[in-house]
Amino acid sequence: MSDLVWGPSEETRLVAIRADLASVSTATACHLLIAHGWRNAYMRGLLPLRELGLGTRLVGRARTGRYLMRRRPEVPLDPVARRVSPEIVLIESLEPGDIICIDALGVPTAGIIGDILSARILGRGAVAAIIHGAVRDAPFIKEVGLPVFAAAVHPSHSGRDLVPVDYDRPIDMAGCQVLPGDIILADDEGALAMPLDLAEYIAAHGPEREALEIWIRGKVAAGGSIHEYYPPGPEKAAEYMAETGRQAPAVSPRPEEI
Amino acid sequence: MSDLVWGPSEETRLVAIRADLASVSTATACHLLIAHGWRNAYMRGLLPLRELGLGTRLVGRARTGRYLMRRRPEVPLDPVARRVSPEIVLIESLEPGDIICIDALGVPTAGIIGDILSARILGRGAVAAIIHGAVRDAPFIKEVGLPVFAAAVHPSHSGRDLVPVDYDRPIDMAGCQVLPGDIILADDEGALAMPLDLAEYIAAHGPEREALEIWIRGKVAAGGSIHEYYPPGPEKAAEYMAETGRQAPAVSPRPEEI
Amino acid sequence: MSDLVWGPSEETRLVAIRADLASVSTATACHLLIAHGWRNAYMRGLLPLRELGLGTRLVGRARTGRYLMRRRPEVPLDPVARRVSPEIVLIESLEPGDIICIDALGVPTAGIIGDILSARILGRGAVAAIIHGAVRDAPFIKEVGLPVFAAAVHPSHSGRDLVPVDYDRPIDMAGCQVLPGDIILADDEGALAMPLDLAEYIAAHGPEREALEIWIRGKVAAGGSIHEYYPPGPEKAAEYMAETGRQAPAVSPRPEEI
Amino acid sequence: MSDLVWGPSEETRLVAIRADLASVSTATACHLLIAHGWRNAYMRGLLPLRELGLGTRLVGRARTGRYLMRRRPEVPLDPVARRVSPEIVLIESLEPGDIICIDALGVPTAGIIGDILSARILGRGAVAAIIHGAVRDAPFIKEVGLPVFAAAVHPSHSGRDLVPVDYDRPIDMAGCQVLPGDIILADDEGALAMPLDLAEYIAAHGPEREALEIWIRGKVAAGGSIHEYYPPGPEKAAEYMAETGRQAPAVSPRPEEI
Amino acid sequence: MSDLVWGPSEETRLVAIRADLASVSTATACHLLIAHGWRNAYMRGLLPLRELGLGTRLVGRARTGRYLMRRRPEVPLDPVARRVSPEIVLIESLEPGDIICIDALGVPTAGIIGDILSARILGRGAVAAIIHGAVRDAPFIKEVGLPVFAAAVHPSHSGRDLVPVDYDRPIDMAGCQVLPGDIILADDEGALAMPLDLAEYIAAHGPEREALEIWIRGKVAAGGSIHEYYPPGPEKAAEYMAETGRQAPAVSPRPEEI
Amino acid sequence: MSDLVWGPSEETRLVAIRADLASVSTATACHLLIAHGWRNAYMRGLLPLRELGLGTRLVGRARTGRYLMRRRPEVPLDPVARRVSPEIVLIESLEPGDIICIDALGVPTAGIIGDILSARILGRGAVAAIIHGAVRDAPFIKEVGLPVFAAAVHPSHSGRDLVPVDYDRPIDMAGCQVLPGDIILADDEGALAMPLDLAEYIAAHGPEREALEIWIRGKVAAGGSIHEYYPPGPEKAAEYMAETGRQAPAVSPRPEEI
Repeated sequence: MSDLVWGPSEETRLVAIRADLASVSTATACHLLIAHGWRNAYMRGLLPLRELGLGTRLVGRARTGRYLMRRRPEVPLDPVARRVSPEIVLIESLEPGDIICIDALGVPTAGIIGDILSARILGRGAVAAIIHGAVRDAPFIKEVGLPVFAAAVHPSHSGRDLVPVDYDRPIDMAGCQVLPGDIILADDEGALAMPLDLAEYIAAHGPEREALEIWIRGKVAAGGSIHEYYPPGPEKAAEYMAETGRQAPAVSPRPEEI
Repeated sequence: MSDLVWGPSEETRLVAIRADLASVSTATACHLLIAHGWRNAYMRGLLPLRELGLGTRLVGRARTGRYLMRRRPEVPLDPVARRVSPEIVLIESLEPGDIICIDALGVPTAGIIGDILSARILGRGAVAAIIHGAVRDAPFIKEVGLPVFAAAVHPSHSGRDLVPVDYDRPIDMAGCQVLPGDIILADDEGALAMPLDLAEYIAAHGPEREALEIWIRGKVAAGGSIHEYYPPGPEKAAEYMAETGRQAPAVSPRPEEI
Repeated sequence: MSDLVWGPSEETRLVAIRADLASVSTATACHLLIAHGWRNAYMRGLLPLRELGLGTRLVGRARTGRYLMRRRPEVPLDPVARRVSPEIVLIESLEPGDIICIDALGVPTAGIIGDILSARILGRGAVAAIIHGAVRDAPFIKEVGLPVFAAAVHPSHSGRDLVPVDYDRPIDMAGCQVLPGDIILADDEGALAMPLDLAEYIAAHGPEREALEIWIRGKVAAGGSIHEYYPPGPEKAAEYMAETGRQAPAVSPRPEEI
Repeated sequence: MSDLVWGPSEETRLVAIRADLASVSTATACHLLIAHGWRNAYMRGLLPLRELGLGTRLVGRARTGRYLMRRRPEVPLDPVARRVSPEIVLIESLEPGDIICIDALGVPTAGIIGDILSARILGRGAVAAIIHGAVRDAPFIKEVGLPVFAAAVHPSHSGRDLVPVDYDRPIDMAGCQVLPGDIILADDEGALAMPLDLAEYIAAHGPEREALEIWIRGKVAAGGSIHEYYPPGPEKAAEYMAETGRQAPAVSPRPEEI
Repeated sequence: MSDLVWGPSEETRLVAIRADLASVSTATACHLLIAHGWRNAYMRGLLPLRELGLGTRLVGRARTGRYLMRRRPEVPLDPVARRVSPEIVLIESLEPGDIICIDALGVPTAGIIGDILSARILGRGAVAAIIHGAVRDAPFIKEVGLPVFAAAVHPSHSGRDLVPVDYDRPIDMAGCQVLPGDIILADDEGALAMPLDLAEYIAAHGPEREALEIWIRGKVAAGGSIHEYYPPGPEKAAEYMAETGRQAPAVSPRPEEI
Repeated sequence: MSDLVWGPSEETRLVAIRADLASVSTATACHLLIAHGWRNAYMRGLLPLRELGLGTRLVGRARTGRYLMRRRPEVPLDPVARRVSPEIVLIESLEPGDIICIDALGVPTAGIIGDILSARILGRGAVAAIIHGAVRDAPFIKEVGLPVFAAAVHPSHSGRDLVPVDYDRPIDMAGCQVLPGDIILADDEGALAMPLDLAEYIAAHGPEREALEIWIRGKVAAGGSIHEYYPPGPEKAAEYMAETGRQAPAVSPRPEEI
């Protein structure tokens, strides 16, 4: 029933790009994705509860879970049923490097995870949790050490309004379709999802672009004008080459080139 | 990959209650469902494009489809791919008496069905289409003869923003969880979803309640007060019995009784 | 505990202006009220379930009720408690010419009145019901004959989310403060609330303005330009006097004049 | 100060396509525009106050006006100032065939035009008025005969919250950029804006597509399946040719073909 | 005219539970309240302007005030009228331990309190101010020392849009009904309102639950799984007893038990 | 094509008031503006990405730019076209003391400026950037040193949804009309726009009011009541005079006095 397709080959490929991908800001990656026609890779409004810090980037494999509105009245917690409840199976099956993505329809009136589940997600080795909805125990979650991205806080438990229905299937994360096995790139500006092959593209071409942007920022901060440096004209491209030994990639590439 | 469980037994049960269920307004059914603790059976804001008319009720078996936000750039329509596209497979597998329910995340900027798909849904014998999102060709759809419930109209096709991902799986219909095989009851006030056993309960107990409500409305329209008639006190319950030969059911039943 | 102050004197004053006030459109009345500095007399988004028809205007005395979000779990309907429940006391105390205004916080997920309460409100002689929230049984309500203005429809009863708390006290009607004893003026564009003395002002000065507007509309429909007729310059004011025997009031009066 | 560029050549071109363009539904035109990469041609949520009727389409040249939030306190209407007020200059300069498009920021609390301005807009020969905001006197406007599209109704005049600032300049119409001299196509599904050259493309290619869609709808209504007819496979394309003598255009054209 | 019922007995009861209640997080308290069927105890989106800090909880008696939209034009401040203006009477009648709760309809365009009123509320001994609406002077308020919860900031004074109407009456606080004399529990996750008897229940049963949650969090942080510890099975409940000497309360109690 | 009227005289006037204006909080200035009937001077919801700090105020001349929704498909960046693109011309024409105000329709899905444009805006000597819409590279922008106010963050570049259309023309900044050459006053509560003559009024009268407010705050913090001090009665006004040597201005001035 899972749509997650992942084997040693995918693992190897992710390991190979993890560091490079983490050197690219979500802003730069988003620009490259849109140039590919991927308009909707960003999970809008899902921001970290606590700032990660400039330059900190999270990379991981998406594991997905889905909630829908509750139908039946809530019943007392049944430990046996809970053992096979989709969100618990998902959490207990997380592997190091995963980023758990929960689609809770953006509902702001029920907290999907609290401090204990956050601690367990961290304990399983996950890199982050992203909730399209609310979290509870937010003051405690900030202490747990797991980066948690969410749309809202609400002290009630998820069962007030929602029930888990399945996991490792396609979901909606605040306007972004996420498939299990997608690669997530996140920083203080939020999170992006993309398939492994696009992640490889970003890891291959994002760093040179990031480097160029940093160089331009420095030039502009030192008084350079947009006309000269952003994008660099031929003269400034040569300056870039002379100073860094690198070819300046196009700031806004032609779609066919990428 | 479908979650639809439906056989001759279910069909027989639905046939047995179809007429009784259709005699109950969504308002009365909703009241009974909430008394059972089913708070979220109503699909909020999904209303018929064209009025059905007072007393017209639609009953059918839910067939579900789901869209998510588009990832890849749109490509020209490929007839082979379309043949196995989830929304087409779903439509072409509809059976008489079905009500197709499409979760398009409530997105108002892309029309999920237009006049041609509406015509085909009708041609397959479906009773209605309910779209958690927008429809296009709304002026034409009104002529097709299929009752269509939606949240918005937008002239663009679905591919502007959305792609179909699966069918006959649990979905969100504007705050209501719908499972394939649910029973839908709809009228000009909108649509409810419930499992077959609850539908049987509503079919069994709704009509007597509806009859009482109509009797009360007549009494009140003739000058009766709320104090006397709504709910009827013992004297008025006797009057009801005398006039109709029927026992007055409790207007607001105790949860344990139902 | 009621804030309603109303006696024979107020009744006489209302009777005296009822017809004149009903000859003024809400658009003209709203303009005059704003010229007085009354910016917030309009109940935004509360529109009639069924069109009243061009020129039909409703005038009545405001009777107010208020709901808040439910705290305690809902219990079975207790006829004794219901007898003193604020919304029932309010309805059963309505007098001919009243317009019942219910503040339900704009909540769209619970219907405040249905067909039976609408029938009773009509039976008590009320002119209209205005609900800052939802109504249920909307298809039936349209048949009852009582003009009902609301923000939404929802099949559930009010108790799903709300409880009545008091009546004949100041309330919020979709951005408009309404006091018990206010005068309501409503047509297909919606409803306005104002105190009796302002209603007298509108009744005194609105009709001449309405007459002028109709004359202007006729002139413009016949080809007159805005420059000449809207507002009328001295020559066109003379034309108005010549044709109608009436002095043209200022279209946009100076505040101190009114 | 106007950005409107329009001469006899443009007029001739518009006259040449007016009838063909009016034979294309907004749904079909929208599809073709998106295939060109024009995602945002639709004015979302601006719908006609009164239904135009199936098949009625409006075509005209866009004349644009813009309001911003009021800064200064409102002063009594000054006839001299009004004569040069942008919205009045715009209205009095309308020419037959124009469609006036007013960007009022979508503000729902002040009516931009009422019955008199509507009558004058009609008197100037305009085809329709489209308001990104509210209108007042809506019950009367429906009688005037001018098709008026708007987002809301509110009885107050525009000056409650807004002031006109300029005209015949680029504006935002509910998510659609409109330039003066754009061609507007509108029906009961709403309105689209596009430059003249794209309008010519739609007029040239829309009708054959509309014809094919109608033929498909007929086939599907008679029991044809989506697989066979939508889009038509080679056999059904031949059937179309045999029955109509026309080549079937691609339902979803390759971008490079158009 | 006040609905506040509070005497030495209530004061004694509050004193008795204050410390225990303050040891319970809003998340834990909210869970217990929902288990009692109190779904709507949380004031959604009303968060502290400045973080209180992990573990800081505020407990106090609710004193309520209510604003509605302004009707009349604003007049210069009249010191005599102000003396009896409801919001001033309320503030000047605050007693140590009170939490002032102001329902300003959630209006984001007018600040209900600024730095001076905040300083006075603190001066009266109040524990916190919670505003269902906006506050002004937010940068200064953060310096005052009074915890202030609000939905928005806006530099204008309340009179731009609102007027106070009454105090110590039932109000709506962002989806939560609050009665004067309710007990408020607030921390960085927001604020809950409940009657004194429920507060006593939370004070009696919340701490043991909080203690268990902390114990579970520790176990899970040390590598324990959800299956074993959340909720604890019999073996882990015994471990809890052995380590802490305490009986583990049910994490999700059966409704009838509480 | 620019509406900016600014010469040595205006510059001199701004220099003359800059320090005094910066000593007035936006809350105090907003109050004075509303007393003049300027209700809409505040840009709602546009807050600094990083706190400025208590007492830090920004004053500058408004330079305005405007975006609308994108029509044509995005094309690769053309350095020549970019040179005359309105937003680039605007940025490269900024002068020391300017505050750049960009109306991007409030669209939250495309970042108008990132770190490089922020660096250049700072490099041109501008005081701040205010975006009615989103910014990208927000983590980096916080490091640049330019105060940036915005409604949202989004990693994509502006071209995802928007295109620049003109500059130095009237714009809408989140409910506030801003003209080029307006004076902007901003602090951690947000930003106000006003013409130079009103800015002179605020600079002349705001400081004495601010001083009084601070004195009142001190008195109230020391235990003074609202009745005595806010506004100060005659006795307390005398106390103010005695302690500070200054006349107490009216807290809420009569409109005609200002």
